[in-house]
Amino acid sequence: MAVFGAIIFLFLGSVKSFSTESEPCTFNKENICKPALANAFFTTIAFFLGGLTSALSGFLGMKIATYANARTTLEARKSIGKAFIIAFRSGAVMGFLLAANGLLVLYISINLFKLYYGDDWEGLYESITGYGLGGSSMALFGRVGGGIYTKAADVGADLVGKVERNIPEDDPRNPAVIADNVGDNVGDIAGMGSDLFGSYAESSCAALFVASISSFGSSHDYSAMSYPLIISSMGIVVCLITTLFATDMFEIKNVTEIEPSLKRQLLISTVLMTVGIAFVSFFALPSEFTIFDFGSEKVVKIWHLFFCVSIGLWAGLVIGYTTEYYTSSAYSPVQEVADSCKTGAATNVIFGLALGYKSVIIPIFAIAASIYVSFSLAAMYGIAVAALGMLSTIATGLAIDAYGPISDNAGGIAEMAGMSHSIRERTDALDAAGNTTAAIGKGFAIGSAALVSLALFGAYVSRAGIKTVDVLSPKVFIGLLVGAMLPYWFSAMTMKSVGSAALKMVEEVRRQFNSIPGLMEGTAKPDYATCVKISTDASLKEMIPPGALVMLTPLIAGTFFGVETLAGVLAGSLVSGVQVAISASNTGGAWDNAKKYIEAGATEHARSLGPKGSDAHKAAVIGDTVGDPLKDTSGPSLNILIKLMAVESLVFAPFFATHGGLLFKLL
Amino acid sequence: MAVFGAIIFLFLGSVKSFSTESEPCTFNKENICKPALANAFFTTIAFFLGGLTSALSGFLGMKIATYANARTTLEARKSIGKAFIIAFRSGAVMGFLLAANGLLVLYISINLFKLYYGDDWEGLYESITGYGLGGSSMALFGRVGGGIYTKAADVGADLVGKVERNIPEDDPRNPAVIADNVGDNVGDIAGMGSDLFGSYAESSCAALFVASISSFGSSHDYSAMSYPLIISSMGIVVCLITTLFATDMFEIKNVTEIEPSLKRQLLISTVLMTVGIAFVSFFALPSEFTIFDFGSEKVVKIWHLFFCVSIGLWAGLVIGYTTEYYTSSAYSPVQEVADSCKTGAATNVIFGLALGYKSVIIPIFAIAASIYVSFSLAAMYGIAVAALGMLSTIATGLAIDAYGPISDNAGGIAEMAGMSHSIRERTDALDAAGNTTAAIGKGFAIGSAALVSLALFGAYVSRAGIKTVDVLSPKVFIGLLVGAMLPYWFSAMTMKSVGSAALKMVEEVRRQFNSIPGLMEGTAKPDYATCVKISTDASLKEMIPPGALVMLTPLIAGTFFGVETLAGVLAGSLVSGVQVAISASNTGGAWDNAKKYIEAGATEHARSLGPKGSDAHKAAVIGDTVGDPLKDTSGPSLNILIKLMAVESLVFAPFFATHGGLLFKLL
Repeated sequence: MAVFGAIIFLFLGSVKSFSTESEPCTFNKENICKPALANAFFTTIAFFLGGLTSALSGFLGMKIATYANARTTLEARKSIGKAFIIAFRSGAVMGFLLAANGLLVLYISINLFKLYYGDDWEGLYESITGYGLGGSSMALFGRVGGGIYTKAADVGADLVGKVERNIPEDDPRNPAVIADNVGDNVGDIAGMGSDLFGSYAESSCAALFVASISSFGSSHDYSAMSYPLIISSMGIVVCLITTLFATDMFEIKNVTEIEPSLKRQLLISTVLMTVGIAFVSFFALPSEFTIFDFGSEKVVKIWHLFFCVSIGLWAGLVIGYTTEYYTSSAYSPVQEVADSCKTGAATNVIFGLALGYKSVIIPIFAIAASIYVSFSLAAMYGIAVAALGMLSTIATGLAIDAYGPISDNAGGIAEMAGMSHSIRERTDALDAAGNTTAAIGKGFAIGSAALVSLALFGAYVSRAGIKTVDVLSPKVFIGLLVGAMLPYWFSAMTMKSVGSAALKMVEEVRRQFNSIPGLMEGTAKPDYATCVKISTDASLKEMIPPGALVMLTPLIAGTFFGVETLAGVLAGSLVSGVQVAISASNTGGAWDNAKKYIEAGATEHARSLGPKGSDAHKAAVIGDTVGDPLKDTSGPSLNILIKLMAVESLVFAPFFATHGGLLFKLL
Repeated sequence: MAVFGAIIFLFLGSVKSFSTESEPCTFNKENICKPALANAFFTTIAFFLGGLTSALSGFLGMKIATYANARTTLEARKSIGKAFIIAFRSGAVMGFLLAANGLLVLYISINLFKLYYGDDWEGLYESITGYGLGGSSMALFGRVGGGIYTKAADVGADLVGKVERNIPEDDPRNPAVIADNVGDNVGDIAGMGSDLFGSYAESSCAALFVASISSFGSSHDYSAMSYPLIISSMGIVVCLITTLFATDMFEIKNVTEIEPSLKRQLLISTVLMTVGIAFVSFFALPSEFTIFDFGSEKVVKIWHLFFCVSIGLWAGLVIGYTTEYYTSSAYSPVQEVADSCKTGAATNVIFGLALGYKSVIIPIFAIAASIYVSFSLAAMYGIAVAALGMLSTIATGLAIDAYGPISDNAGGIAEMAGMSHSIRERTDALDAAGNTTAAIGKGFAIGSAALVSLALFGAYVSRAGIKTVDVLSPKVFIGLLVGAMLPYWFSAMTMKSVGSAALKMVEEVRRQFNSIPGLMEGTAKPDYATCVKISTDASLKEMIPPGALVMLTPLIAGTFFGVETLAGVLAGSLVSGVQVAISASNTGGAWDNAKKYIEAGATEHARSLGPKGSDAHKAAVIGDTVGDPLKDTSGPSLNILIKLMAVESLVFAPFFATHGGLLFKLL
């Protein structure tokens, strides 16, 4: 963070050669703005604030999750309903913490920065974009590092424990079991949290930046200016009410009620939030205003913005429900994949990949529709608030998402503490529902990442002073083509990282089983710490190459090829990355649940494929293992790729616009 | 073909309401052009001619291949060198046939059409674009239908024969063995041939169309106008000389010499062709001329075009060599994948997918570089001739590609005829080299498809009268996003098609083994014809949905959303499809050769993983089976997706420009 902070300061400071003199503003040329050096300084500060807030949220989230695990296990002794409420409430605490924390720090920062900037809102909100970059850089650690951590431990533990030694999942004799449990928190709590926090911070920054160069900014209408923040605040209130439905209005009595209950949470929050948006829009906004639209001004009415935010919100619901359809064993797609296990692992993999590809269709149409509507109604500002709309129910989304790893670890604790079989059964039921909701959370994260990165793209283009990004220009087209390739390059790195980290873990677990006498008999304790260390070291080391790819691409493209090629790269990686991310995480989710479907044997069809240990089940386990890095590492990490490159480009836009395109200048 | 021909005629005829009056030309407004109805008529004729030429080439190619199989087997009795020469020569016959046939029909058509069109070159070359569409429509049958055919038979034969019944590959007792052999010809000979023929016809048409609205067209310089055809003619001469190197200059004495010898062919033809291009350019072209550049004119010099064609040619070589590096077991990537089989099928699949993703990087940079150079030097005409440059060595490319299935089937014949073990070993060695060269051929086909479809895209944009394709317009952006999704949708369909067709084949083969007494003992003959019929019916039936997706998307996007959204769709599917296609076919090729690497056991490392039947080998077989539809059906079919949509858009451009965008007009 320190090194990258220094780079930000130096690059942005160099835009006007570190001059400390005030200058005419870029967009509102009559006004005088603060010097570029001040913007460089405050952007760097905002960058650190964003990073720290993200780290703090991740830290607190993991604390909460680790407290909640044990409590859920204890409540599971009483009933499934009680355990569910504890797990869900803990998830909700995490969700609210993150949403509120992000909003609070952003609000305070804006007001503190204002003490210096005064009437120079252009400079103020330009600096605030650093907050998004900080949040997203931290998410690189959380998502990519966390993803490698959790899957190295998981795959490593399973390959030796379940396959070679034939001991159950979460058995305390397995040396990698603690690393696996830690990994659930690192990847799913801290990783997902930092990812969604990043989206949230970035879409707020993108919206604020575009607003600052629109009529809100020039007329200094502070309440209209704060519209993005007010939307998010309303989201917190709505989610608070929604949570009461799950914890106090309906009681879970049966295992089968869990998944519908979590799904209902999404629907309730979406319906309530639609009302909330209408309320906020009509009170905070002037009846008519203009929005900056790549050089021209676009007249926008209140109801336009209401539609922009709402369509983002509802597109999120569509994506969530589609993801559920393709990854839940209650529907035919996963059942077909399970059925294909009859002819072996190869057909399972083929059908799983095909399912993932197919699951892309509806989400893409939902995203495309919301982009078209919000783009047409309110240009890039519309996209940014559509993203905020999708993220406005973030507290509910995170609650049902964090619920998954909490229940998963509750089961681990039950197993390790040697608690009775019925308790383990209850935690397993909680966990199974968590698997699908985790997939929904991922769908949500990807959908919002797409909208956020488009909003950032728009803000970048505005700030870099580009009027058109014409595919018919060779500079743009090669950017588009290479940008579309980046998700593949990035995925190749992250998948191989998991593979090689898991192999290291396998070796260590095998070594302990072979060298510690009495380990298999349960009379000696394994060395958990070494396994944790292997996962930690591997994730930190292995995340460097993909991290470097993400961080360096905009710098290289902008500096050497210029702002237009970079615009092409961003658009290309966005449209291609979304597809890879959605298909990867749904394929993985489907394989996981196809395996669970065979194991649970709840229907006649499922029993014909099972039981555990049958050929079909073995084929399903192979699919599940292939899916692990796809759904928990490479897929979700792509959110970071598309968002971080876009926000980085936005922050460095003044530098690229001034000094960029060296290579073409030389030629 | 008849139905689609009627659609073409009706849509294009309706542009000027079926009027038979001559009109001022679109680009050269002083001249008088033939009526739109005549263009509709001649486009339809050209469409049929393109389709017929493609079908004829495929038919003759399969004839040659089936004669060549048996001859290669017979020559293998003498020596490996003799067998190689027969297989390679037969491939060359197929290559020359296709290149010459395509060129001849195109040349004759232009001259016959000219009898009617006279000085109206705009209309003449507009109609000729139908030839590309016809060729590409036929390629949809060849590639998609052929791909489903061959893999349904292959996977079906292997799943029962090798896995359940434990009989060797190509054993005559397997009822699906004939279908499998037929499939090699259908998929690899007719499919690849029609694909490359389509590319060739389309790039010629795109170049001719752009030239006709440039200074060549307005000054009626016929020899400059025919530059694309002369390049291809020179390519045939160069490949003829190149072939002599393989068949007469060097003699193959050892198995290890085969692969380098085939690779050398590519290098020789590329070097010779570079000289040939220089020669052709300086004789056929005026020293300076202007090229149509989306509304403006671009001044181009001879050496500009020389660079455009050459960079396409050399980019093809780079793609070919990169593909070889990632799919040949002689290098570390495939060896690493083989090594990952130690820990089972799951790690094999993970490493294989990662390899495919990684193999995209260099080809994309090669394509991007050639696009940038040729685009900058000579706008869309540059791209079209760069594509022709890559395809100019098509005869050599097809020769080394067709060599693969010919050797494969030679082995099948040796097995079925009960010939001695040493002959089978020789044909196996020929086949192993053919595997890598087939991958090279696929890389080539994809690279050229990317350039061709960009050239067609440029021609479409010019013909539809679009000046910019601005990513910052919502219409274009949603097109881009949805376009990038299409390769996933398409792949989901083709992969599932192979899966379900293979399952039908499995059932039939099982049925025959169970119901025909004496089949396993070799005393009774299986019913080959039923298996052939299953593959044929399945491929024809299963290709309808993906075919409909490809054919209808441009019609729906153009008619309802208009020319700009369609431009976005084309650009999106191009930049995304190339990645999916390259990664799919390299992943499949790598798995196939990783399996062969373990089976052959040529090195210490390979022997540590084998022998046949070991756990590592079983894991490798699973990877190979997953790779089959990826590398032979869904991957290469994407070439057709990106090209066919582009050429269809080009042909229908006048209709879309006049009547398109209904939905936006209504709103």
